[in-house]
Amino acid sequence: MGGSANSLINRPILASIHTQAFQHNLNRVRELAPESKIWSVIKARSYGHSLAAALEGLAATDGFALLDIQDAAWLREHGWQGRILLLEGLFHENELDLAQELHCDLVVHCDAQIEWLERYADKVHKPISVFLKMNTGMNRLGMKPAVYRSAFHRLHAAGYRMHHMTHFANADQIDRQPTVGSQVELFNQTIEGLDGPTSLANSAAVLWHRNALGDWVRPGIMLYGASPTGLHEDIAHAHLKAVMQLHSEIIDIQDVLAGDRIGYGGRYEAPESMRIGIVACGYADGYPRHAKDGTPVYVRGGNEGGVVCPIVGRVSMDMLTIDLRNAPFAKIGSVVELWGDQVPVDQVAQMSDTIGYELLCAVAPRVPVKII
Amino acid sequence: MGGSANSLINRPILASIHTQAFQHNLNRVRELAPESKIWSVIKARSYGHSLAAALEGLAATDGFALLDIQDAAWLREHGWQGRILLLEGLFHENELDLAQELHCDLVVHCDAQIEWLERYADKVHKPISVFLKMNTGMNRLGMKPAVYRSAFHRLHAAGYRMHHMTHFANADQIDRQPTVGSQVELFNQTIEGLDGPTSLANSAAVLWHRNALGDWVRPGIMLYGASPTGLHEDIAHAHLKAVMQLHSEIIDIQDVLAGDRIGYGGRYEAPESMRIGIVACGYADGYPRHAKDGTPVYVRGGNEGGVVCPIVGRVSMDMLTIDLRNAPFAKIGSVVELWGDQVPVDQVAQMSDTIGYELLCAVAPRVPVKII
Repeated sequence: MGGSANSLINRPILASIHTQAFQHNLNRVRELAPESKIWSVIKARSYGHSLAAALEGLAATDGFALLDIQDAAWLREHGWQGRILLLEGLFHENELDLAQELHCDLVVHCDAQIEWLERYADKVHKPISVFLKMNTGMNRLGMKPAVYRSAFHRLHAAGYRMHHMTHFANADQIDRQPTVGSQVELFNQTIEGLDGPTSLANSAAVLWHRNALGDWVRPGIMLYGASPTGLHEDIAHAHLKAVMQLHSEIIDIQDVLAGDRIGYGGRYEAPESMRIGIVACGYADGYPRHAKDGTPVYVRGGNEGGVVCPIVGRVSMDMLTIDLRNAPFAKIGSVVELWGDQVPVDQVAQMSDTIGYELLCAVAPRVPVKII
Repeated sequence: MGGSANSLINRPILASIHTQAFQHNLNRVRELAPESKIWSVIKARSYGHSLAAALEGLAATDGFALLDIQDAAWLREHGWQGRILLLEGLFHENELDLAQELHCDLVVHCDAQIEWLERYADKVHKPISVFLKMNTGMNRLGMKPAVYRSAFHRLHAAGYRMHHMTHFANADQIDRQPTVGSQVELFNQTIEGLDGPTSLANSAAVLWHRNALGDWVRPGIMLYGASPTGLHEDIAHAHLKAVMQLHSEIIDIQDVLAGDRIGYGGRYEAPESMRIGIVACGYADGYPRHAKDGTPVYVRGGNEGGVVCPIVGRVSMDMLTIDLRNAPFAKIGSVVELWGDQVPVDQVAQMSDTIGYELLCAVAPRVPVKII
């Protein structure tokens, strides 16, 4: 609805998606989980990176895991012949024909979905793989251990190819209940003696709990080069690369005096005469309005290739304002990296009291995406 | 890139856009600013509501104000013959031909834009209206008062139809510098003796500073039925209607015991045995991850048509979890309003330390939009 994604004429904002970084990060998952197959999680337009970029950059994955069956259809239309897992299974019984046509593997997390599959058993042409989800303490989706085995037997009896799956609540924490250890123990006890491959680890478990991987791992955020914890330090030595680079430009510069205030609410007061750069990126582009004064951006130019400058004043809908005292070379048209190689998305997230996941997913449709 | 917007098969999430509410809110602006013409601000996909809905619901406006020239093109392609204002003017000189072809009015906020227009003066077929932006204390875009008059004369001499414009930093606040009064005074002093209509008021000024409107007002957030301050109380008696209703459904229910923890980080601990509803809406749909425990949602059903239930546990990418103790009638498939008539978007914003603007703009492309 308005706004073509790749026109030459546009506000000077662009999200570049680097498919080589995708490949690199996928290889890192292989190194960390060499015995496991990989579901690359690409829900939410591949965490804001576009399905097209994921299909290109993650082509070596064993399968794609996603949410919307339309996205599965898109992958098939664009030539993906590998496996596809619908991470929350089906939302309505009438999606079964399409799911079969698209050869999707299905998560099953509740009784209603079991009933749909039982009624559908006669219509199955080619065995359908089911990942039966167990609630081992996350208390979100999944069957309680007490009813898990009977659910398993019902689906197995109906002819489905059964797999076991659970999701960790705290693989990125060390002091929270339920722990990975307690969830794994409950999981293993419950599936004892039942056939079928397992799927356990999210990115945090791939990085930090390699005794809790399962036959299929499900990395998401690490494929995009960001940290499960939201803290860049936690992955600084994990050899991951940022896949998205978000750039804009300075579109105006204000010379302000000591005591002048910047933007809505006048949150920032200039301590001295200084230059303020106005950057064409705001919360309606997906940049977090929660970003505090001091959130880093990287201004290109000068002798060193660029410098970090801090945000000053509240992020507005279409613009943000930065302190240019570090960047005497900056002028209208100077390129600004909002996040990417120079400014990890997690640093922006940390200054905004959230995690990189939220920022990446929030990149708005009005931001053109360029696959590199 | 993946995911058709209006398929029948989808996750059960939907943003309904009510064009009658648009009409109602536009009429409210007319009542509050009867002497002014109205630029309806529809940047950022009409604050997440879609340009198509805005074109239908706000057809009685005097003009549309927006950011991306592609959106101007979209409006022309879809029959809009009224005025269009590019709120930040042009980003590149090479957009001038297209801007003229689309009959756009242009904001001018910096010297470079003046130079482009001077060079273009010979190519102007039909007079182009310019809204020259003055920085009266916002310190974002705009010419300083000291250079404003010479900028005005240059553009006037080049044949452009001149208008005067400024933007308020604190029309929604009473105790912040710069005040509306100080900005208006500086504006009036600066343009004294210069011809041309004025444009001053944003939504907050239309609501609360009706001595500071100007010939053209520029309402944004109030057209969508939300508050400039982010506090619903502030517009509770302003007779505005929510234009967007964001709905999803309960897709699973967990029976938890006292001491059980919910979701990532186990932020919420159940104080007793209770039912937890899992709702198919998460931060990758645009719902704020900052939402605290207690953020209201409205669960439809029961004798009273529905009840408010609080969020418990951290919002995750695709789901959120709610306390169903108030809603014994709730079941899988129960409809949940995330915001709209029952839950003002500003209440969600307030519980998330932001403003309704950010939430509305953030509604993700994967959320289908239905115009009603």
